[in-house]
Amino acid sequence: MILIKNALNLDGFRTSILIEENRILKVQSDIKVDLPPDTIIIDASDKLAVSGFFNAHTHAAMTLFRGYQDDLSLQDWLDKIFKLEAKYVDKHMVYWCSKLACLEMVSCGTTGFMDMYFFEDEVAQSALDVGLRVVIGEGLLSFETPFCASFKEGLKKTLQLKEKYKNNPKVKVSFAPHSLYTLEKNDLEELASTIDSNDYIQIHLSENMNEVNTILSKYGQNGAFVLDEIGLLNKNTYLAHCTHLTEAEIDLISKKNAHVIHNPQSNLKLSSGIANVCKMIQKGVSVLLGTDGCASNNNLDILEELRTAALLQKLFNPSYMNAKLAVRIAQDFGGFFDVGLSEGKLADVVLFDLNAIEALPMYNPASYLSYAANSKSVDTVIIDGKIIYKNKEFTNVDVGEVKFNVAQIAKKIGSL
Amino acid sequence: MILIKNALNLDGFRTSILIEENRILKVQSDIKVDLPPDTIIIDASDKLAVSGFFNAHTHAAMTLFRGYQDDLSLQDWLDKIFKLEAKYVDKHMVYWCSKLACLEMVSCGTTGFMDMYFFEDEVAQSALDVGLRVVIGEGLLSFETPFCASFKEGLKKTLQLKEKYKNNPKVKVSFAPHSLYTLEKNDLEELASTIDSNDYIQIHLSENMNEVNTILSKYGQNGAFVLDEIGLLNKNTYLAHCTHLTEAEIDLISKKNAHVIHNPQSNLKLSSGIANVCKMIQKGVSVLLGTDGCASNNNLDILEELRTAALLQKLFNPSYMNAKLAVRIAQDFGGFFDVGLSEGKLADVVLFDLNAIEALPMYNPASYLSYAANSKSVDTVIIDGKIIYKNKEFTNVDVGEVKFNVAQIAKKIGSL
Repeated sequence: MILIKNALNLDGFRTSILIEENRILKVQSDIKVDLPPDTIIIDASDKLAVSGFFNAHTHAAMTLFRGYQDDLSLQDWLDKIFKLEAKYVDKHMVYWCSKLACLEMVSCGTTGFMDMYFFEDEVAQSALDVGLRVVIGEGLLSFETPFCASFKEGLKKTLQLKEKYKNNPKVKVSFAPHSLYTLEKNDLEELASTIDSNDYIQIHLSENMNEVNTILSKYGQNGAFVLDEIGLLNKNTYLAHCTHLTEAEIDLISKKNAHVIHNPQSNLKLSSGIANVCKMIQKGVSVLLGTDGCASNNNLDILEELRTAALLQKLFNPSYMNAKLAVRIAQDFGGFFDVGLSEGKLADVVLFDLNAIEALPMYNPASYLSYAANSKSVDTVIIDGKIIYKNKEFTNVDVGEVKFNVAQIAKKIGSL
Repeated sequence: MILIKNALNLDGFRTSILIEENRILKVQSDIKVDLPPDTIIIDASDKLAVSGFFNAHTHAAMTLFRGYQDDLSLQDWLDKIFKLEAKYVDKHMVYWCSKLACLEMVSCGTTGFMDMYFFEDEVAQSALDVGLRVVIGEGLLSFETPFCASFKEGLKKTLQLKEKYKNNPKVKVSFAPHSLYTLEKNDLEELASTIDSNDYIQIHLSENMNEVNTILSKYGQNGAFVLDEIGLLNKNTYLAHCTHLTEAEIDLISKKNAHVIHNPQSNLKLSSGIANVCKMIQKGVSVLLGTDGCASNNNLDILEELRTAALLQKLFNPSYMNAKLAVRIAQDFGGFFDVGLSEGKLADVVLFDLNAIEALPMYNPASYLSYAANSKSVDTVIIDGKIIYKNKEFTNVDVGEVKFNVAQIAKKIGSL
């Protein structure tokens, strides 16, 4: 058992949290029960306790390309990145570079993530080895890549992954068609006829205006409608970016109970624009938050991402995306895992150090998290009832080994 | 003397830096000279060395109001903040809350700042006590405030400050008329006739469209033209915000060699908008970077600010505000202090720890600083040839005392 004593919570009250196995047993101001002698007791009187964050859109292994190519718009950037990937992506790279990503995510308070890339079995393994929850999705494309001879092979790999992880409570498998502009309609139709109603789908959608116009001229309608017509838009669909949705698309996505993943920093970095997620939320759309991959962000810091989300939305409305709402979308696990700071939920807890200079004064913890804090103050991260990170150090991962392996791979590209 | 050995620099090369007194004596790949026995030698082989950052627009003492009131537009926010200030701002508050601000700024790599507030003598003292360079400006308004009976009193205080600090190389005094909407024309004219051509002027300008419209209807022309007509627009004028300048104003500001201070996070937070600083720089305007005060940002992190600046400008142009340019504007001391990483310059040096997870891989140090790093990796800060911060700790400030005093003041407002 773990007892977190006397932490500040997001509402500004003191709370204690009792964790048994991987679930939260009690959350109350003072917990007085007989505890087993091996209970780990954490005095959190100088800590803020919050539920873990979910990074809903990553390409984790792209840590390898962090900072290699910046200051370009999406298409120019993709041209460079596709070439790099063809040369450097393999199973070994994906394992170690994803593991580096997992370390970075945990150090920012992230306890689960949804990934789309290649060799996703390696991503799952890296996440499990570090201790994170993960939703994996083998990237599906309609052309041959160095990772997949065809769309059909990608689909087969996904089905194998689904079988492999069907009993692993920390890994979910999704189908990950890359986008409407990299997949042909017949492949998307094959996908629709392959999956069942419980299968998860993640896809990039309306990332920039160029894509929107391409789809409009190819299909005669906007992307969300194309997906719906093919049968790929439902409550298990996760749409990354959605920078430029029409009102009608937002209404459709809301009606279908599909999810939008907001990636504000990546959307800025690649000159794609700003998604009006306030409007989506007001229309009942489930909005999650993601950093995107390190080649376009260039970090995996969900705290920066939630701040950017909150700040940018004020261009549309000064009050709607307030501090609390920004934190909430960053903590939304999108139905994949039942995580939360209340009794019976899966135990992912992050403790922030309130001794940080920027934590003073403390009138409003949600405001602190949204607008003042950074990952420097993430002190302890508990995932699934296990302490993964304590006093700003990993408890059970050889960080040096991860860095060494990534550095060896990066040297081939030209890391300094 | 201080010898920094074998650091990575922004261009990706290894460099050593020799500091004598408060100036940089040598910068070269390898320094082999006889050094005095008391030379401090820093092995920087796992560090990135950069010139110190300048935070060109702060209201440092407003750390007291950090997170008290968020998610409002400028006017609604000002109404709340003015009331708080009337109640809680005094000399004691300004000293301690500015000192907290100085600690936060140093921990983010900032080595100098330009401040506008009240009791600015206290701000100068707090900066000197921590070790920072500072440009102070006693806020001038045309109405009675709890801090100043009149505009004339503010002007008199400024002249006294100018006299007091005339021989202090780390403190510069500016005249700080708050804005065109809080000052009457006759007071601005009196100011113009009081100052001489070497005096510095800092003023808020065109922060939001409401202000732009107010000035346009009062004066029949835009703010920069009003300032010019009164005689307050020249090479020593520093214009904060400038979120909504017309093309003609940008041309005028460029022609007059005045400076613009960009405050991207504050401008987003208060729903003011995004300044097109790319266009300003292309037109030859000197653009500096500032965080604004903690009531509207809510931190003083210049690294966040430069990232936000770089990301937002990509809405106008994907390539112009590249990583190097973003770093450069954050390191621009606006002519106040001759700081830089070359021989003969004042010695403000910041060392970033390259062992950070997000520093891997390292293809491009400017990209790292702009898009991946955060203040967690600021390891050492040298200001004016003195080590202020080392191994992420202050060398010569009682941090606990500062926190204690700020906490005592904040308790009266209702800090948790």
